[in-house]
Amino acid sequence: MNNFEQWIDSYPDFPKAGILFRDISPLLASPTGMSLLKKEFSRSIKEWKPDLIAGIDARGFLFSSLIGEALNIGSLMIRKSGKLPGEIIEMSYDLEYGSNTLAMQKLSTLKDKKIALMDDLLATGGTMKCAKELIESQGAHVCGCAVVVELNFLEASKFLDCPVVSLASYDD
Amino acid sequence: MNNFEQWIDSYPDFPKAGILFRDISPLLASPTGMSLLKKEFSRSIKEWKPDLIAGIDARGFLFSSLIGEALNIGSLMIRKSGKLPGEIIEMSYDLEYGSNTLAMQKLSTLKDKKIALMDDLLATGGTMKCAKELIESQGAHVCGCAVVVELNFLEASKFLDCPVVSLASYDD
Repeated sequence: MNNFEQWIDSYPDFPKAGILFRDISPLLASPTGMSLLKKEFSRSIKEWKPDLIAGIDARGFLFSSLIGEALNIGSLMIRKSGKLPGEIIEMSYDLEYGSNTLAMQKLSTLKDKKIALMDDLLATGGTMKCAKELIESQGAHVCGCAVVVELNFLEASKFLDCPVVSLASYDD
Repeated sequence: MNNFEQWIDSYPDFPKAGILFRDISPLLASPTGMSLLKKEFSRSIKEWKPDLIAGIDARGFLFSSLIGEALNIGSLMIRKSGKLPGEIIEMSYDLEYGSNTLAMQKLSTLKDKKIALMDDLLATGGTMKCAKELIESQGAHVCGCAVVVELNFLEASKFLDCPVVSLASYDD
C-alpha cells in the first residue's frame, strides 16, 4: 500500500476555526504521486465496471477526466448551480448553515448506465450523497465513489450505500 | 487536424442573452475525443518544455492533471478566492460588470520555473491574463497557454504575449 498521506498537507482552522483542512496540492505537484494515483484509482474503479466517471465541481474534475481517459470511458460534470447549459436537473442538500445545490445536464443516454463518482475528499458525505441521488434520478446506477482523502471518523461511507475507495484516510 | 468542434455543443443566450455558450460536455463524454485531446495537448505543450501545468478553476482542472500526468510533470491550481489554504497570492481583474479574483498558493519553488497554463475556453482573455500575472509575480515564466475552445474573434491571443494552442476555434 502506498502512503499517499506523504503528499497531503494539513492546515488547522481553515476555512474556519475548528476545521483541519487536508490539502491535495503537494500530490498534484508530484509526478510520482499522480502516477501512483492514476494506477491505484484505475485498478479499483475498473472492478466496478463503470460506463462513465462523474466528477464533482471543482476538485473532482482533477481526477474524473484523468481516470476516465485512463479507463477509456468518458466523464461528466456535476456542477454548482447556474454553470451548465441546456436542460438541467438540480438537487439541494443541507449544510451546517444553509444549503448547497448541485446540478447536472439531463441526459437520456444515462438510463441503466453505471457511474463511478469522484471527488477529492469525503467528509460528512453530504455532497457525495446529493451527487449520487442526482445521478440515480436519471435512471443510472452509482457503482462506487472514489476520493483521494477520506475522513474516516465522520463515517460517511456507512450511509452512501455503495463501495467507497480512498487513497489517504484520517482518523481525526 | 482533428475536428474537435464535433464534440462541442453550442447554446445561444447562456448564461445570459447575447452569449453563445460553447459546451465541452460531449468531448468529456467521448473516450475517442479525450484520447485525441490528450495526444494533441501533450504534443503541443511538450514543445514548451514546462516544469509544471497550472489549471484554472474549475474546468481547467479537467485538463491540467490529465496533461500533467501524461507529461510526467506536476500540476497546480489557480483558484477562486477563499478556496486555498496557506499563504496565498491574489489578483483581481475587471469583468463587464464588477471584477473577479484569482488566487494561488505562494510557493518558493516556483522561481524561474516554466509553467503552462490550461483552461477550457479562451474568450476575452481576462482570466488567462490574470492567471499569467499571478504566476509571473512569483518569479515563474508562463511558457504557453492551452485551451480546448478559442473564440478567435475576440483576439485574446494577441495580448497574452505567449504561445496559445487551442483544439477548437470559432469565428463567431
